[in-house]
Amino acid sequence: MNHFFNVKTLEEVLALAGDFPAVGVENIDTADAWSRVLAENVRAREDMPGFRRACMDGYAVRAASTFGASESGPAWLEIAGSIAMGEIPDFDLAHGQAVRIATGGMLPRGADAVVMVEHTEAVDELSVEVYKSVAPLQHVIDPSEDFAGDQVVLKKGSLIRPQELGLAAGLGYSTLAVFKTPRVGIISTGDEVIPIDQTPVPGKIRDINSYSLSAQIREAGGEPVRYGIIKDDPRALEAACEKAVAETDMVLISGGSSVGTRDYTVEVLSGLPDTDILVHGMSVSPGKPTILARAGDKPVWGLPGQVVSAMVVLKIVVIPFLNQIQGLTKVLSRVRVPARLTRNLASAQGRRDFVRVALEKGENGLEARPVLGKSGLIRTMVHAHGLLEIGEHVEGLEKGSLEDIILL
Amino acid sequence: MNHFFNVKTLEEVLALAGDFPAVGVENIDTADAWSRVLAENVRAREDMPGFRRACMDGYAVRAASTFGASESGPAWLEIAGSIAMGEIPDFDLAHGQAVRIATGGMLPRGADAVVMVEHTEAVDELSVEVYKSVAPLQHVIDPSEDFAGDQVVLKKGSLIRPQELGLAAGLGYSTLAVFKTPRVGIISTGDEVIPIDQTPVPGKIRDINSYSLSAQIREAGGEPVRYGIIKDDPRALEAACEKAVAETDMVLISGGSSVGTRDYTVEVLSGLPDTDILVHGMSVSPGKPTILARAGDKPVWGLPGQVVSAMVVLKIVVIPFLNQIQGLTKVLSRVRVPARLTRNLASAQGRRDFVRVALEKGENGLEARPVLGKSGLIRTMVHAHGLLEIGEHVEGLEKGSLEDIILL
Repeated sequence: MNHFFNVKTLEEVLALAGDFPAVGVENIDTADAWSRVLAENVRAREDMPGFRRACMDGYAVRAASTFGASESGPAWLEIAGSIAMGEIPDFDLAHGQAVRIATGGMLPRGADAVVMVEHTEAVDELSVEVYKSVAPLQHVIDPSEDFAGDQVVLKKGSLIRPQELGLAAGLGYSTLAVFKTPRVGIISTGDEVIPIDQTPVPGKIRDINSYSLSAQIREAGGEPVRYGIIKDDPRALEAACEKAVAETDMVLISGGSSVGTRDYTVEVLSGLPDTDILVHGMSVSPGKPTILARAGDKPVWGLPGQVVSAMVVLKIVVIPFLNQIQGLTKVLSRVRVPARLTRNLASAQGRRDFVRVALEKGENGLEARPVLGKSGLIRTMVHAHGLLEIGEHVEGLEKGSLEDIILL
Repeated sequence: MNHFFNVKTLEEVLALAGDFPAVGVENIDTADAWSRVLAENVRAREDMPGFRRACMDGYAVRAASTFGASESGPAWLEIAGSIAMGEIPDFDLAHGQAVRIATGGMLPRGADAVVMVEHTEAVDELSVEVYKSVAPLQHVIDPSEDFAGDQVVLKKGSLIRPQELGLAAGLGYSTLAVFKTPRVGIISTGDEVIPIDQTPVPGKIRDINSYSLSAQIREAGGEPVRYGIIKDDPRALEAACEKAVAETDMVLISGGSSVGTRDYTVEVLSGLPDTDILVHGMSVSPGKPTILARAGDKPVWGLPGQVVSAMVVLKIVVIPFLNQIQGLTKVLSRVRVPARLTRNLASAQGRRDFVRVALEKGENGLEARPVLGKSGLIRTMVHAHGLLEIGEHVEGLEKGSLEDIILL
C-alpha cells in the first residue's frame, strides 16, 4: 500500500530480464525439437558429407582431362562404367576416363570434378564427348564442405528452426538437449469476470484475458497453465499466487487495473515469501499500471485488466522475459516491417506509446492505418496486424512518414 | 517416361492450388484453437460488453454536470455512493451527483461519462470537486461498442491469432469449428540415404530431408507423417506412395533429383489410380526438377533431393497449397522485410531465383548478405535468415539496392 510508485521506463524494465535464470534442460527426440531452444552446443562429430559427392548428374572426371574442351573441339573420354547411388567406387579414375554419376553419388579416387550431362554426348557405350571444360572441384561437394568434424555448428541458446533440426539430424543426433518449455501460470482477477461458458448479466463480462494471454504464451514458446478467475479478495489471490508460483516458471495476474485492486495486488505480492516488487508502473501506454515482482527466482506480473493493454504488455515486455527463462539468447533482433502512416498521430511526451495499426498494400508499398478505439475493445486487436512504437521524446508522427511496425 | 517435360513458371504452379479442396472440419475447445483456421463465420450473439462500462477509475456522472468545470472553477458534485465491480447499480443518477466507479464497473442509469479520479478531489464523504469537464460518453465503453449482437465478427478462413481466440472466448464460444490439421506424408528416397541413427560409410548420407521438411510442415500448420526412407525401386516407391496418399492429405517425396530417379518418380506417380502429372519442372532456382501430381484430390510432390532445394521449394511453392487445403483464405499477403544488398548478384534470365541471405543490422538499417554455397549444403540454410526473390527478367541486382526479403 505504501510502496513508492516505482515507475520505470521500458528499457529499465527490460534490463531486469537478465536477472532471471533459465529453466532446466531435457533430452528430446530431434523429430520433436522444432521451435525449441538448444541447451548445449552441437558439434559435427565427423565431416559432412564425409566423401566427395556429385552435386550434378553427369560424369565424374579428372578436371584436367577436360581442359580446353569446347563445342567445336570436344574432349573425348573413355567411359569406365557407372556409379550407383550409395556405392563406394573401388577403383581409381585415370586421366582420360569418365564414369557416369548421379547427383549425390560418390566420386571415385582420382576424380575431382563432375561434367554436367547437358555438356556431354555419349558417342557409344565406351566413349563420351565433353563440350565444356570443368575446373577442379566443380560440381562436387568436398568431404568437409558442409561441416568439418569436431566443429561447433549450432550454439547453445539458438532457436531450432527447420534447418537447424535438419542439420542436427544430418549429423546423427537423434536426440537433442533443449531447455524445458517454460510453464506460465495465468490468473484472471475481478468480481466482474465470469467463465466464458456463462452468459453475463449486465455488469459482468466473460474472461477474455485467460484465453488471449494463453495463446500469446503458446505462440512465444511457453506452456500456459490457467488458474481460472479469482474474485477481488486478497486472501484468494494470495492462495492462487502461491500455488501458481510453486507450480510454474512465471506467473501472470491480469486485472487489477483499477487503483484499488492494483494496490492489493502489490500488497499480496509483497506478502509472498522471498518476494520483491521490482516495477510498479511503467512509462508505457498502454501498460502504465504494470507490476513486476520477483518471487524467489521467478517473475510474477500484474498486467492491466483491459484486454488490449494486457496483450500489448505481454508482447512488448513479458515475452523478452519468457525468452530469457527459456534460454533463448540468439534471437535475430526483432524484425520490423516498414510501412507508411496513413494519418497524423499525436503522442504524449514522456511515455512510450504502442499504437495498433492495420497493414494494407498501398500504391507505394505497405501502409499502416492506426486502429482507433479504447484499450478495452478486443475488436481493435482483431483489426490490427502490428504495433507502431512512438518514443518518449516524440510529440507525434506525420502522415506519410515511414515507420517500422512490430508484427502482431 | 515419355511425358513431355511440362515446365511451368512459379505463377502457373501457384495458380493450381485453388483446384484442391480443403480438409474436413472439427469442433475443438477454444482454448486449443490458437494457430488453427476458422471453418465458419463467428457471430456476436449479443452486444459486447452489453452494458455501459467505465474504462477509467473515477466517478460516474452526467457529463452535463461537469460542463464548464476547471482548475479555477471546479464543479461540486454530491457523492451518491460507490459501485462495486460486477454490481448492477439499481438507482438513477441525477444531475449534480457522482458515484465512485472503477475501470470495468457498470454505470448507473442516467450516467453517461466518467471523470478520471486524477481530475477530482473528494472534499468529504459526501462531496467531490471536479476540475475538468467531460463530454458525454467520455471514458465509457457503450454496450455495443466492441461488437453489436448478430454481427459477423470473425470470418471463415481466418487464422486464429491470440486476439481472435480472445474475442471468441469473450463472445462465449467455448468450442470453435476449425479445419482439421492437414496430415502431410513425407517420403525420402535414395539408395544413398540412411536413417539418422546410423553412421554413414562413404557414399551414404543421413536422411536430412525427412526432418527439415517435417519441421517446415509443422511450422506452417500441418502434421507431418514420416514414411521413412524408400530405396531406388519403383515398386517400393509405388507402395509407399499409395499408402501415404491413402493416409494423408498431401504427400512429399524428396529425392529423385537425378534424371533417372526423377523419371521413375513421374512414372510411379502416373501409375497411381486417378492421378495426373500437373507440373514436371519449374523455371525456378533452386527447384527446377519439382514434380506436382494430383492423386484423386490430393497434391503429391516430387521435391528435389538437395536439402536446400527441397526446403526452398517447400517454403515458396508447397506452403501455399498447404494453406489452401487447411482452408486458410484470409492471409495477410506474405510480409517481406526490406534490406540492402551487400554485394552485386548475378541471375540467369528466364527463371525465378531465390537466394539465401543473412540479415544483419547495418549503419543504414538492415543488410542482406547473400549466403553462398551449393544447394546440397544445409549449412547455408542455417546461416540464412531469409530468401531474396529475383524475377525472370532481371539479369542481376546491384550492391546497395533495397530488396524485399522473405523471412525463413
